[in-house]
Amino acid sequence: MKIDHGNLRALAAVVREGSFERAASALNVTPSAVSQRVKALEARMGRLLVQRTVPAVPTPDGQVLVQLAEQTALLEHDALDRLGLEGDAVPHASIAVAVNHDSLETWFMEAARLFAARSRATLDLQSEDQDHTAALLRNGSVMGAVTALADPVQGCRIHPLGSMRYVATCTPEFHARHFAQGVNARSLASAPVLVFNRKDALQARFARKVMGDVPWQPPVWWLPSSRAFVQATLDGLGWTMNPLPLINEALESGRLVPLRARATEDVPLYWQHWRVNSQAMEALTQSVLAAAGNLVRRR
Amino acid sequence: MKIDHGNLRALAAVVREGSFERAASALNVTPSAVSQRVKALEARMGRLLVQRTVPAVPTPDGQVLVQLAEQTALLEHDALDRLGLEGDAVPHASIAVAVNHDSLETWFMEAARLFAARSRATLDLQSEDQDHTAALLRNGSVMGAVTALADPVQGCRIHPLGSMRYVATCTPEFHARHFAQGVNARSLASAPVLVFNRKDALQARFARKVMGDVPWQPPVWWLPSSRAFVQATLDGLGWTMNPLPLINEALESGRLVPLRARATEDVPLYWQHWRVNSQAMEALTQSVLAAAGNLVRRR
Repeated sequence: MKIDHGNLRALAAVVREGSFERAASALNVTPSAVSQRVKALEARMGRLLVQRTVPAVPTPDGQVLVQLAEQTALLEHDALDRLGLEGDAVPHASIAVAVNHDSLETWFMEAARLFAARSRATLDLQSEDQDHTAALLRNGSVMGAVTALADPVQGCRIHPLGSMRYVATCTPEFHARHFAQGVNARSLASAPVLVFNRKDALQARFARKVMGDVPWQPPVWWLPSSRAFVQATLDGLGWTMNPLPLINEALESGRLVPLRARATEDVPLYWQHWRVNSQAMEALTQSVLAAAGNLVRRR
Repeated sequence: MKIDHGNLRALAAVVREGSFERAASALNVTPSAVSQRVKALEARMGRLLVQRTVPAVPTPDGQVLVQLAEQTALLEHDALDRLGLEGDAVPHASIAVAVNHDSLETWFMEAARLFAARSRATLDLQSEDQDHTAALLRNGSVMGAVTALADPVQGCRIHPLGSMRYVATCTPEFHARHFAQGVNARSLASAPVLVFNRKDALQARFARKVMGDVPWQPPVWWLPSSRAFVQATLDGLGWTMNPLPLINEALESGRLVPLRARATEDVPLYWQHWRVNSQAMEALTQSVLAAAGNLVRRR
């Protein structure tokens, strides 16, 4: 069976962009042309490849073909690049990567900088919680991910990166007001806590260590921004688990204090990427491993 | 017709948390108890109130009741707070608010700080593109929003906040390499550009001003983080529209330069919130208006 690569690219664009309209605009054709191409591919395969939801979601069969499309695009880019062609002759390639928020805000942009120096491809970054980036890898939305998942996703290579260290912190004033009697079930129940979003389980994990497995319903500030998160901690709105690289200075100057002696949690991170024999992916992996050098190493 | 407020709270929790399981955990009951409560409310109203999707989405009828639930919770909190009750006797209230990314990273946390000093309620912040926060207000997910929409959403009060100024910027080296022959259709087609996500239309708007309404498919770095965005501009990965408050220093020190003379775009922002006679909402509005004082005023 032969696959029409134009149709394949249309399918990949729909999944990447999330809708037939945006895919059409990205491919510079009409939405009905995109729709016809995807339908032709579905007829050829004899199965549904993408659910027409908002956003459009690939079926498991569709995922397989999206991965094929993305890998092919990367290999084409590699080959033309290696032929030494200039500028516009090499179609532009972009590698879709999922990165957890705190990595994106701390060490990952160094990886992007190193990658830009080594490759002509760009990165299509998606930001997710570290416990959820693996899902994007699995469903074919991205080719690589910084993830907390230690088990390789099927078809992927995995590299340990070290750990992101989190410290339960608050201002000295907040500590005096809420934790003067100790960090315990009673104080944790009433002290306001900052949580990134519904997927962020770090604070609850710390509370469970202290309190055991009892219901915990403190006042919560939901703050989906790493920068706002640190600012809110410094402003004394609540305590929270902050990534050490973002609060190192504040801890050293005494503007923030750890909640108690054992207040750190290390989250091991991994770089996982599809097994594709591509120079661009190899350059990206080297860049990620180099930039992750400042993460905490396990003994 | 009487409405059971326990059932109403269950519905609101499902919509807020996105699933029956998470709502159960937030309310500290079993998922089947949440399901029974929502079903009882649906039977009482004789219509479907929430779609059992992932995440759970309210129907238009459900939205009306979610708004009722959230407003009632806020009024209860106000009343008990006014009675001067201490600590745990006042049920904790949280106001759901949608804020565009760049506001959250710049001036909005000052509003949160002012609000924390005036109220015992916390904020449940959601981060969205400024052109899309109004949708969250409309579907009942949030009670207030910082939005680019100048028309009041039905049932909402609107306050103009001034404008966020964006400047098309890059490093001097990037400018010399890509724009030495001028900022035009040719240079914009090949110069890499940084874009926040698929909803970010600022760069395309600027390009259209320069090029007119022709297809534009430059190499794109997708970077869904304000901090990473500025870092990537400083690292010379591409040009982009940066919010002035985040790059003021870099412009003054010459680490970044504007792409050309007319390189700014002002995006007017508005604070919209449901009409609810609540002290907490009033305190929030005052805090937002005060913190927005540094935005650009229109003449």
